[in-house]
Amino acid sequence: MSKSSVKDILSLDPKGQEVELSAWVRTFRSNRFIALSDGSTINTIQAVVDFENHDEALLRKINTGAAITVKGKLIESQGKGQTAEIQVSDVLINGESDPEKYPLQPKKHSMEFLREKAHLRFRTNTFGAIFRVRHALSFAIHNYFNEKGFFNIHSPIITGSDAEGAGEMFRVTTLDLNNVPKTEDGKVDFSEDFFESETNLTVSGQLEAELAALALRKVYTFGPTFRAENSNTSRHLAEFWMIEPEVAFANLTDNMDLVEDFLQYLVDYALKNCKDDLEFLAQREAEEEKSLPQNERRPMGLIERLEFVQSNKFQRITYTEAIDILRNSKPYKKKKFKFPVEWGTDLQSEHERFLVEKHFEKPVIITDYPASFKAFYMRLNDDNKTVAAMDVLFPGVGEITGGSQREERLDVLLRRCKEMGIEEEHVWWYIETRKFGTCEHAGFGLGFERLVMFVTGMTNIRDVIPFPRTPGHCEF
Amino acid sequence: MSKSSVKDILSLDPKGQEVELSAWVRTFRSNRFIALSDGSTINTIQAVVDFENHDEALLRKINTGAAITVKGKLIESQGKGQTAEIQVSDVLINGESDPEKYPLQPKKHSMEFLREKAHLRFRTNTFGAIFRVRHALSFAIHNYFNEKGFFNIHSPIITGSDAEGAGEMFRVTTLDLNNVPKTEDGKVDFSEDFFESETNLTVSGQLEAELAALALRKVYTFGPTFRAENSNTSRHLAEFWMIEPEVAFANLTDNMDLVEDFLQYLVDYALKNCKDDLEFLAQREAEEEKSLPQNERRPMGLIERLEFVQSNKFQRITYTEAIDILRNSKPYKKKKFKFPVEWGTDLQSEHERFLVEKHFEKPVIITDYPASFKAFYMRLNDDNKTVAAMDVLFPGVGEITGGSQREERLDVLLRRCKEMGIEEEHVWWYIETRKFGTCEHAGFGLGFERLVMFVTGMTNIRDVIPFPRTPGHCEF
Repeated sequence: MSKSSVKDILSLDPKGQEVELSAWVRTFRSNRFIALSDGSTINTIQAVVDFENHDEALLRKINTGAAITVKGKLIESQGKGQTAEIQVSDVLINGESDPEKYPLQPKKHSMEFLREKAHLRFRTNTFGAIFRVRHALSFAIHNYFNEKGFFNIHSPIITGSDAEGAGEMFRVTTLDLNNVPKTEDGKVDFSEDFFESETNLTVSGQLEAELAALALRKVYTFGPTFRAENSNTSRHLAEFWMIEPEVAFANLTDNMDLVEDFLQYLVDYALKNCKDDLEFLAQREAEEEKSLPQNERRPMGLIERLEFVQSNKFQRITYTEAIDILRNSKPYKKKKFKFPVEWGTDLQSEHERFLVEKHFEKPVIITDYPASFKAFYMRLNDDNKTVAAMDVLFPGVGEITGGSQREERLDVLLRRCKEMGIEEEHVWWYIETRKFGTCEHAGFGLGFERLVMFVTGMTNIRDVIPFPRTPGHCEF
Repeated sequence: MSKSSVKDILSLDPKGQEVELSAWVRTFRSNRFIALSDGSTINTIQAVVDFENHDEALLRKINTGAAITVKGKLIESQGKGQTAEIQVSDVLINGESDPEKYPLQPKKHSMEFLREKAHLRFRTNTFGAIFRVRHALSFAIHNYFNEKGFFNIHSPIITGSDAEGAGEMFRVTTLDLNNVPKTEDGKVDFSEDFFESETNLTVSGQLEAELAALALRKVYTFGPTFRAENSNTSRHLAEFWMIEPEVAFANLTDNMDLVEDFLQYLVDYALKNCKDDLEFLAQREAEEEKSLPQNERRPMGLIERLEFVQSNKFQRITYTEAIDILRNSKPYKKKKFKFPVEWGTDLQSEHERFLVEKHFEKPVIITDYPASFKAFYMRLNDDNKTVAAMDVLFPGVGEITGGSQREERLDVLLRRCKEMGIEEEHVWWYIETRKFGTCEHAGFGLGFERLVMFVTGMTNIRDVIPFPRTPGHCEF
């Protein structure tokens, strides 16, 4: 635990002091210069061996991927772009890496290839950077909420509730599939199952978070959620992580204030704490973009997109205003939009990106969507046709998060349940909070991987989670 | 979001300034004194209404559990033990709470009753305190690891791997249980399932964490894990949260240093940041203990137990030494132990507690257990019969966490897999990390709810997680 990492050693002032470092060989040049890396930072440290003093058989084991321990003096580096290097006196091989067999050679591998090597891809520059940024964002989320007086609530993963209707669910069972017990009328006998009832993997912790917020004032969840949807796209996972804050005595304006402050904090945190990794990812993206035709390239670079979010006040408009703007826009008039723009239909990514990137040139929050395509728990506005919902739109990606003020009025909630086919007895506990001390409250849900994609610039969601679960894929 | 909480207002210097507070009524005495609470702290603030200036019909709605908003001047309190109170000028009822129907009246409810009201129990003093402490510990965990350069890794929840053998697993499926597809030879056809293979809920993220540690040096997981065991005890849940740090280039001694520093940090953090809640819980426990016969009472109070862990250096002994001590102990000689003490059998809680509470009078780390009852991935010692495992023992509870140095030697790992019936093809990715740049590494697993139980003094694990999942129970 007290052993030095590459990051520790790079932070030292090189004065010829003795250091010891265990790490992995990234490259070994001229039988002399070992670039050592250990994932603590994207940077490597150079260890210089004097091959005359070392056994040739040992030097032959210094291959990409090998784990070694070096001892020596930390001195100012002779090389360019490096501040310190280790003048090696001793080398120990911890674990070899046969260059004929090691899959990760120092060359460019395709993202598809690396997905099949998800157990090793953490070792590459790109994935090291992604997972360090993912960590930083995860910590920033906890840090933000803790500082603001929110309590982290672990909402249940296995649930009997399927009320949210957010999508297809995975069943959880201990029944023997070879011999499913049946009731007398031939149905599956769930009384024989572990929980003596039908259970699924949660699609959202929001309803449970509301229960907690209506007691602890400000809470948030940060946990895995699941969708059993057969969506083989670059933006869908069957298992992903969600952040769901919920605040009592808060309305839609409070919710917008919170989401704006929160997202700007996260982006700012990443810019400040992940400088090296983001610069690497930005450069990587810029290289990738070069191979694309001009019209497919992103209008802004990675750092530029992050600063766009960090520094611009978010524009707030209603859905109705957004429809007006879109119908009066050039691309609409020139029939450039693929999807229709009509009051009562949901906005598509092309519309959202037009509003952010062309019209307002800042992040946009759209509020007050038609009730027809929003969930039963969103608070009905006085017009009786829109709800106090909000979506936050970012450049490049469109919707990054969505939320709403929740329906706190018992009679309206019961009516909405009925209209949307939600059975009261399934959500009696949710409804009961509206009977005792109900109050205005609001919250939102942020898909963590969508955020990590935005911050790292990765375009496939499978590349921002360690072991992606998608239809047909549950390896590792 | 910027609205004041009870905690905010209690932190102000009362100078007659105007304040506004929305919160829930805890009690209303003498038609004059409202104790307001909102879960931001265990403390209430007193709001004093001048009943002559208020409508009687309105005052009748100020009942326990009602949500109200008060405006008024913040003045120094006349009452004892309170620093500030609100001299109310305006009262607004947000949500009523019918005293005939509201289940949480200001009296003592049994823990069993409150478990059935898990959607409301957050509102009680006890559960408010527990879930604030739970949050504080959760944050402290992230904060500790972040400061020490660990990266948070989200290990997968749905997994095809069942290699750890840690217990019975829940199946995850989208197959139609009414009509399970079968192959030609009559077996369940998992190629029709969502992932086109058998999948379960994870029992541990350790194996995946190892993959990440062998690239990023220091990582930790903090996520839900599952056991489909029919254990209806006060210490078992079907769904619980685990923390699993994993460190490359670390041996068992490094692991012990880490676990000791980590656990002391967490306890210290709770003592410093949850003072009011812990004092409340300590007092609650002391009251409960009074009703127990002398020999069932705990030898130390809650705060005393926490300080015991915070201030004592952990004693480190081997399993073999522990067996010796136990066999030479008074309770052994007087046949007071229920379970046998013999080299080769696991220690029981009674033995662990004897070592901690009577023999050493400090937390104890036992190392080098017989390989026979430990997992395949624990590093075999040179004696060929023990492994480099460790268990940490705390007062009152016995084992609080366990871990090991991992087997990094390919040949030994393969032999151990064979001995323990682990099929290589199920863990090919795990084994492969031993082929390329293998190195010493170590880690441990901490059941989060066990930690929360220790810190809050709660004796039933169902009371330290918001919505407990146990055999036959998956409500909310």
